[in-house]
Amino acid sequence: MRAARQECCRLTPRVTAFTNLPGPAEALARYLDAVRLSPRGVETVPVAEGLDRVLAADLVAGTDQPPFPRSAVDGWALRAADTAIATAAAPVILRAAGAVPMGAAATAAVAPGLAVRVPTGGMLPPGADAVAMQEEVEAASGTVAVRRPVRAGENVVDRGIDVRAGETLLPRGRRLRPADLGVLAGQGAARIEVTLPPRVAILATGNEVVPPDVPLGPGQVHDMNSAALAGAVRAAGGLPTVLGIVPDERGAVEDALRRALAGHEMVLVSGGSSVGERDVVAEAIDALGPPGVLVHGVAVRPGKPTVLAAAGAVPVLGLPGNPVSALVIFELFARPVLDRLLGADPRTGPWRTVRARAASALEGTKGREDHRRVRLETRGAEIWAVALPAGSQVLTSLVRADGIVALPPGSRVAEGEEVEVRLLG
Amino acid sequence: MRAARQECCRLTPRVTAFTNLPGPAEALARYLDAVRLSPRGVETVPVAEGLDRVLAADLVAGTDQPPFPRSAVDGWALRAADTAIATAAAPVILRAAGAVPMGAAATAAVAPGLAVRVPTGGMLPPGADAVAMQEEVEAASGTVAVRRPVRAGENVVDRGIDVRAGETLLPRGRRLRPADLGVLAGQGAARIEVTLPPRVAILATGNEVVPPDVPLGPGQVHDMNSAALAGAVRAAGGLPTVLGIVPDERGAVEDALRRALAGHEMVLVSGGSSVGERDVVAEAIDALGPPGVLVHGVAVRPGKPTVLAAAGAVPVLGLPGNPVSALVIFELFARPVLDRLLGADPRTGPWRTVRARAASALEGTKGREDHRRVRLETRGAEIWAVALPAGSQVLTSLVRADGIVALPPGSRVAEGEEVEVRLLG
Repeated sequence: MRAARQECCRLTPRVTAFTNLPGPAEALARYLDAVRLSPRGVETVPVAEGLDRVLAADLVAGTDQPPFPRSAVDGWALRAADTAIATAAAPVILRAAGAVPMGAAATAAVAPGLAVRVPTGGMLPPGADAVAMQEEVEAASGTVAVRRPVRAGENVVDRGIDVRAGETLLPRGRRLRPADLGVLAGQGAARIEVTLPPRVAILATGNEVVPPDVPLGPGQVHDMNSAALAGAVRAAGGLPTVLGIVPDERGAVEDALRRALAGHEMVLVSGGSSVGERDVVAEAIDALGPPGVLVHGVAVRPGKPTVLAAAGAVPVLGLPGNPVSALVIFELFARPVLDRLLGADPRTGPWRTVRARAASALEGTKGREDHRRVRLETRGAEIWAVALPAGSQVLTSLVRADGIVALPPGSRVAEGEEVEVRLLG
Repeated sequence: MRAARQECCRLTPRVTAFTNLPGPAEALARYLDAVRLSPRGVETVPVAEGLDRVLAADLVAGTDQPPFPRSAVDGWALRAADTAIATAAAPVILRAAGAVPMGAAATAAVAPGLAVRVPTGGMLPPGADAVAMQEEVEAASGTVAVRRPVRAGENVVDRGIDVRAGETLLPRGRRLRPADLGVLAGQGAARIEVTLPPRVAILATGNEVVPPDVPLGPGQVHDMNSAALAGAVRAAGGLPTVLGIVPDERGAVEDALRRALAGHEMVLVSGGSSVGERDVVAEAIDALGPPGVLVHGVAVRPGKPTVLAAAGAVPVLGLPGNPVSALVIFELFARPVLDRLLGADPRTGPWRTVRARAASALEGTKGREDHRRVRLETRGAEIWAVALPAGSQVLTSLVRADGIVALPPGSRVAEGEEVEVRLLG
C-alpha cells in the first residue's frame, strides 16, 4: 500500500505538485486494491421492510414454483382426449363432477367423461390434463358442453415451470426491489437477512463556511456539502451523520477526524479547495495512522484535489469544497466504496445511462477527464443533452442537471454527435 | 362521477362483462378527473434528512449567489489595467499589499500598482477587477511579477451570476435530490417544509393465500403481493401498512376495507383474479359509500380486472392477485395517485425510459395494451430488450425484468426493431 502511495503523489508542504495524476478509473482501482472493505454485519428485517436493503445470502428456492399444477383460467378441468371430436355443431357433453376450492387440495378426480370446475390458480384435479375456459363452454344442470377440442396442457401451469427447488432466485449482494420482496415472501421468507448499512460521518472544513441556520457575515457562505452529502449517502444505502464544520487548521481537522472514526465505517470530509487547505486535510488524514493517504489528486474535472485514504479499516475520503465537485466525486469514488461496505453488487448496466445528442459542441480539458453536467430534453423522438454552465455556477448546475457526460482528456464532441449520459438521482 | 362510472362497466352479479374497456391512459385520466387528491399536510424536517421528500413551497432565492464577487482560484487580486503591458520578458511588478482571509470581508483595497493575495472562494477586495493565478506569477519579498496581461474579470465570479435574489430555485412539488438539499442549505434553510407522506393500507384477498411464515398446505400459496406492494409504496414515497390477508367473502372484505380507511390516505387491495373474487372486491368497495367504483376493468394486459375507486376522499385501488400484474398495475395507476397525494411532480422525462432493440418479434394482444416485461442486455454499443416469459411465469419475470415495453393493441414489433423500455426499480 505504501508502494501504491509513492507511485501516486508525494505531498510537499503547503504546495502539492499535481503532476502525472491517475485518471478516475485508475485511481479507484488502485484505491480499492489497497483497502479491504466489507459489511460490518448482518441483521434480519421483516420482508415488507426490505426495500433497497442488500441481501446477505443467496435465496435458493425451497420448493417448486408453482408448487402444484394449476389452472390459468376460471373453467373446467377435463381430459383433453375426451374433447378430441368436439365441434360447434356436435359438442362433447361432459358430466359436471364438483369443484376445486381455492386454497385446498383438489380431491375429486377427473375420470373419463367428467369435468370439475376450477378457479384461476386452483389446483388441477388428479386425472385432468387440461382446462376449458368457462367462456368457451356451456355449463347447465350438471353438464358441460365443449364445442372444440381442448389441447392437452391447455390453460394448465405445470408444477415447477417457473422455478425449480434448489435454483438460486436472488443472489447475495442483490439490492432488493419491490418485486424481489414478493419473491422472498413467495418462498416463505417472513424475515430476511440483509447487511447492516455503513454509518458514514460527514465533516465540512473551511473558515468561510457557516451552518445553514447562521446568518452570513461578509465573505461567508452556508455549508451546502453536509446536506448534499447526507442525501447522497442515504441514496446510496448508508446512514449519514452530519458532524458539522471544522476550521482549516491541521489540529482541529485531525481531532475532528479522530472523533469521526469512532462509531463510523466511513468518513467524508469536504472542503479544502485552496492549496493550503488541501494539505491541511491530507496531512490530518495521514496523522491518523496507516495506511493514510493512498491517492492524492485525480486527473478529473471537477475534483482534481480528491484524497482517497484510510485510517485502519475505515475509508476516509477528502472531497472538494465546491458542492458540484463534491457530488461528482461522491458518485465516482464514495458510491463504489459504499457498495463494498454494503456488500452490494455495483449498480451498473446500460440502463444507468442514456444516449443523447450534444446540443452544442463540447470541449474536453487537457490532461483531465472532464465530467460535464447536462440537462436532457426531448426533441421529437430524440434526446438532446444541453450542457450546463461549468465551473463556479454552482446552484444552476446542481439543480438543473439530469446527468453527467464524461469527456476524455482533450476530446471534442461536435454539435449533434451522440454522447453517453450517466443519469443522476 | 356517476356518469363516468356508467360509461365504464356495470357489474352484473358474479359475471362481469369486460367489453369496451378504456385503455390505461384513458382510465387514469378519467379516474384522476373524478377524484380530488392532495397532501394531508406539511411538516418541517432538517435539510440533511430531506432526501426524496417533496417540497411544500417554492424555494425563492433570498440572496444573490454568490453573495459577493469572489476569486475562482488561489492567486492575486489586482487591477487588470495595471497588467496591460506585461510580457514574459518584461513583467509588471506589483507591490504585495496583504491577503484576503477566508470567511471574512476583504478590507484592504487594491490601489493602482498593488496586488492582494486571495484564496479560492475568497472575497474580491475593493478596487480589484481580476485575479492572476498564483501558478502564473512570481511572488517574492513583497512583490508580485505578472508576465502577461490579465483580462478584466479574469478568474472572478461576479456577485449574483449564478442566482439572483427573488429567483425561484426549486419549485413546490420537487422531489428532493442530494444536490437540491445542498441548494436549500446554501440558502440558509436549516429546516425545510415538505409534504406529509400518504399512509397506504395494503390488503390481500384470497382463500388460497397464506402469510409467508405459515407453511403451505395443499393448494395454498404464500402472500407475495403484500411485501411487493409495501416496497413499491415506499419507493414511491408513501408509508405502507401491511394489514394482512382477508378471505374472499364480501362481508370480510368490506369489514377489512372499513378498518383500512381509518388512518390511511389510500388503500390497495390485491387479489380477486377469478371472476367471483373480482366481484367480491368491487362490491365491497361500492358498499363503502360514494363515489365507489369509478373504473372497473382496463384494456391492459396484465391487469384487465383492475378496479379504480374511492371511498369519500380516500382512493381505493383493486389490483390483480398475480404479483407481476399487481406491480405493473401499481406503476400505471397507484404511482400517479401517490404522486398527487404527495403533491409531487410526476416523475416523467425521456430518461425514465431507454430505447432498445427487440431481441425477438413481439406480438401485441388484440383489444388490450400489452405490458411486456423485458430484460436488457448490451450487445456491442447497442441495448437489446429480451422479452421474459409472460403470463404465469411469475417469479422469473419479476426478478429478471429491467423494464416494461407497452405494445398497443394488436401491434407487432419485428426482431431488431427499436422499442421504448420504461425502466423499473
